[in-house]
Amino acid sequence: MSNPLLIDLYQLTMAQGYFLEGKQDYQASFAYSFREHPFKGGFAVFAGVEATVQYLQNWGFGEKDVAWLGTLKANDATPLFKQDFLDYLLTLDFDLDIAAAPEGSIVFAGEPLVRVTGSLIVAQMLETALMNRLNFETLIATKAARCCIAAQGDRVLEFGLRRAQGPDGGISASRAAYIGGCSATSNMEAARACNIPVSGTIAHSWVMAHDSEQEAFEAWTRSSANNSVLLVDTYDSMKGIAEAVKAAVELNKKGGNFLGIRLDSGDLAWLSKRAREALDAAGLQDAKIFASNDLDEYTIMSLKSQGAVIDSWGVGTSLSTGGEQAALGGVYKMTALKKPGKDWEPKIKVSDQAVKTSTQGLLAVRRFFNDRGRPTGDMVYDLLDPPPTETIATIIDPFDMTRQKSFDPDLHHFELLQPLFVGGKLVAQPRDATTIRDNVIENIKHLDRSHQRFMQPHRYPVGLERSLFNRRLDLIERSKNLK
Amino acid sequence: MSNPLLIDLYQLTMAQGYFLEGKQDYQASFAYSFREHPFKGGFAVFAGVEATVQYLQNWGFGEKDVAWLGTLKANDATPLFKQDFLDYLLTLDFDLDIAAAPEGSIVFAGEPLVRVTGSLIVAQMLETALMNRLNFETLIATKAARCCIAAQGDRVLEFGLRRAQGPDGGISASRAAYIGGCSATSNMEAARACNIPVSGTIAHSWVMAHDSEQEAFEAWTRSSANNSVLLVDTYDSMKGIAEAVKAAVELNKKGGNFLGIRLDSGDLAWLSKRAREALDAAGLQDAKIFASNDLDEYTIMSLKSQGAVIDSWGVGTSLSTGGEQAALGGVYKMTALKKPGKDWEPKIKVSDQAVKTSTQGLLAVRRFFNDRGRPTGDMVYDLLDPPPTETIATIIDPFDMTRQKSFDPDLHHFELLQPLFVGGKLVAQPRDATTIRDNVIENIKHLDRSHQRFMQPHRYPVGLERSLFNRRLDLIERSKNLK
Repeated sequence: MSNPLLIDLYQLTMAQGYFLEGKQDYQASFAYSFREHPFKGGFAVFAGVEATVQYLQNWGFGEKDVAWLGTLKANDATPLFKQDFLDYLLTLDFDLDIAAAPEGSIVFAGEPLVRVTGSLIVAQMLETALMNRLNFETLIATKAARCCIAAQGDRVLEFGLRRAQGPDGGISASRAAYIGGCSATSNMEAARACNIPVSGTIAHSWVMAHDSEQEAFEAWTRSSANNSVLLVDTYDSMKGIAEAVKAAVELNKKGGNFLGIRLDSGDLAWLSKRAREALDAAGLQDAKIFASNDLDEYTIMSLKSQGAVIDSWGVGTSLSTGGEQAALGGVYKMTALKKPGKDWEPKIKVSDQAVKTSTQGLLAVRRFFNDRGRPTGDMVYDLLDPPPTETIATIIDPFDMTRQKSFDPDLHHFELLQPLFVGGKLVAQPRDATTIRDNVIENIKHLDRSHQRFMQPHRYPVGLERSLFNRRLDLIERSKNLK
Repeated sequence: MSNPLLIDLYQLTMAQGYFLEGKQDYQASFAYSFREHPFKGGFAVFAGVEATVQYLQNWGFGEKDVAWLGTLKANDATPLFKQDFLDYLLTLDFDLDIAAAPEGSIVFAGEPLVRVTGSLIVAQMLETALMNRLNFETLIATKAARCCIAAQGDRVLEFGLRRAQGPDGGISASRAAYIGGCSATSNMEAARACNIPVSGTIAHSWVMAHDSEQEAFEAWTRSSANNSVLLVDTYDSMKGIAEAVKAAVELNKKGGNFLGIRLDSGDLAWLSKRAREALDAAGLQDAKIFASNDLDEYTIMSLKSQGAVIDSWGVGTSLSTGGEQAALGGVYKMTALKKPGKDWEPKIKVSDQAVKTSTQGLLAVRRFFNDRGRPTGDMVYDLLDPPPTETIATIIDPFDMTRQKSFDPDLHHFELLQPLFVGGKLVAQPRDATTIRDNVIENIKHLDRSHQRFMQPHRYPVGLERSLFNRRLDLIERSKNLK
């Protein structure tokens, strides 16, 4: 796969346009953000940063890319790209400044999560690839965090590769699901590439490849003595449970270590209780009950509310794809422009829909904490005109100016966007998936539970710093009136 | 990426189990099918075959794969995989027989689309990778066909890479969308890798990088004289339309060729009518109107029903992810087993849910056509016990035995599953994406419109050949009663 060609056509034709206009030395700032929390929730877990870093470190056009671009034709059959421009592409390096929320941060709708600053032409050409990675991994990490919240401390296992959207969709989903709190994946390539724990049981085909369920269970406990989870629903779950108990008792007699059973159809609440009773009655108190079958956070919550006795939740499709929501609607908008030798100009896109109107400036985010260490509000501000740190800061919701909040200057706060690249050089320490996952679990503990609710969650305060808000209103008005 | 490790853990632990039991010479047959049409529709467009072929042609474990597998530990900290088994993996070749519906076929729920026959161990290990590719590409090709049906002959363009689930998710989505009927993609890497036409306009950032919309439009028509589509909603769509008309008239005076405008927010039905009036009034009858903004087949249909005057529909998220349905629920089930020197045994998985009960045999599908050349019913049958061709054939819906249909032996029919690999050798002619796309468009023309309806489509008749149906009932009963 060619890295720089992971791009939409219009970014390249616009890049050529800037080149033909002589705008090679124009600088721009772009901000990545999303407009609504995924799954109608109250937060998101930010992910995809590591994949973005890897992409950027390998960015740059090669001779083959440019040769192929040279074959494309415009509508009048003339070459779409001029040779001068193609030669110019070969000279481009990734040399931008990027600040981003650290991977695993809890983040909210309406705030910038990545700020890209530098060459207008290069910054514009990164749009699609950045969004491709950040949108998807953030979606999945958030879904995983929600499944873990529903599971109330039980293990959640990600089994979704077969329903994933392509091989690397599956791999990045497995990594993002792990970061979001899952305990393991079934996906071997993700385990290898991202150093994630693997987990698995058996399929119905194992049972069907033997002459009876009994024979299949005996064979499995024999060949997999210390790793044996028995799938009980190939023919009839209740009979399967009874067969599994027999095989388990035999295994343990021989000094084996029976792990448990998996339920994959039928009423999981009812069956899990019957299974627990049968296991306990046979002295198999340590055996675990795994469950799978189109699970997601809502089904897990509902089953738990009915007293399902399930120890490990195997979640497939909804963790590899997001389930009912397949994409995070992230956007990457220009927020400021700098002509050579001039000051930065704030830039805004207005639109006929309020929610599609952007915010201008070199954007940053300051997160405030209350005295119990919980995040209590995020202030979006402009580095070109930062608010004084020694006075009370007020934020205003850009879509509902009656929603305002003030923060005492003594409150603990930090900068959400941290330097990732400076002049194209990576400056942030890479962290492994397990470290990021530990961080996410800690971050969710500190997030007020009202924002974690699935139905009608409390909206976390995110707003524009007062002077930024006012300048934005002025800019909207000027652009509408062509002042 | 390692091809053979694109697998779930349990397939490898089961493979080891079969190996330890000495079942290396067992043969099995597996069938891939899906249980419900995607998007609550009445058909699907089968895709992902080419990607599956490429995967299988490169299948096989290498030293590095096996070395990594050797590092994995079971729960008791002993190696998860035994050295004998790892050595055995290195000896495995892909040498199976595979028959599949040709890519681009119109296919239906409840019928086998791929039949994999050969080594139990190898056939089982292909499960996840096959499903990963077939599920997703079939989902997207179907979504694209639906969008094209809604667009009633207008061009549908796929612009979804930024919201796709990973880079290759994006590339396979672009290919599948094209196969399903889209006219072009914005995704350059997909265009290069799959030889698909590309399309694109400009982004808001182009307008924002200039001092005014007027300046931006003039610059774009200058730098892109024969490829200029102007995006009109950066500040105010109605004013943007007026500015675009001015720029277009100037361009055409200079001998340029103005292509059209793009609407990206606001009410697309109302705005498109106003835009058409303004373009026509300026003598720009040839200028096209492009529209985008969270489109899918339902919105396209609704906008067209209100008389929207849109020539090209740019569809993003819903074509790169499936939108409201992110995965096709395809399954890969063992249907028969053959011990060395013995006959094939039919195999069934029963489950506590009727819809999860499988069908046994070496499965094939015969499609019947009426005298107007329209497909009129699909018969699933068992190659081990095929129905006589000279008598009337009856199919029975396995989930509703009151739904039956009979076919006269003189009716035109063909075999849906065609040989793809024989003994591991590719025997089908590869076809390029454009040929497959032409086929899909033709196939949809021949599909009765009642199956194309979005709401409550008429169910296409798919059923089990009568004797297969009866043997299946018997097998269910025997497995439930442990006969």
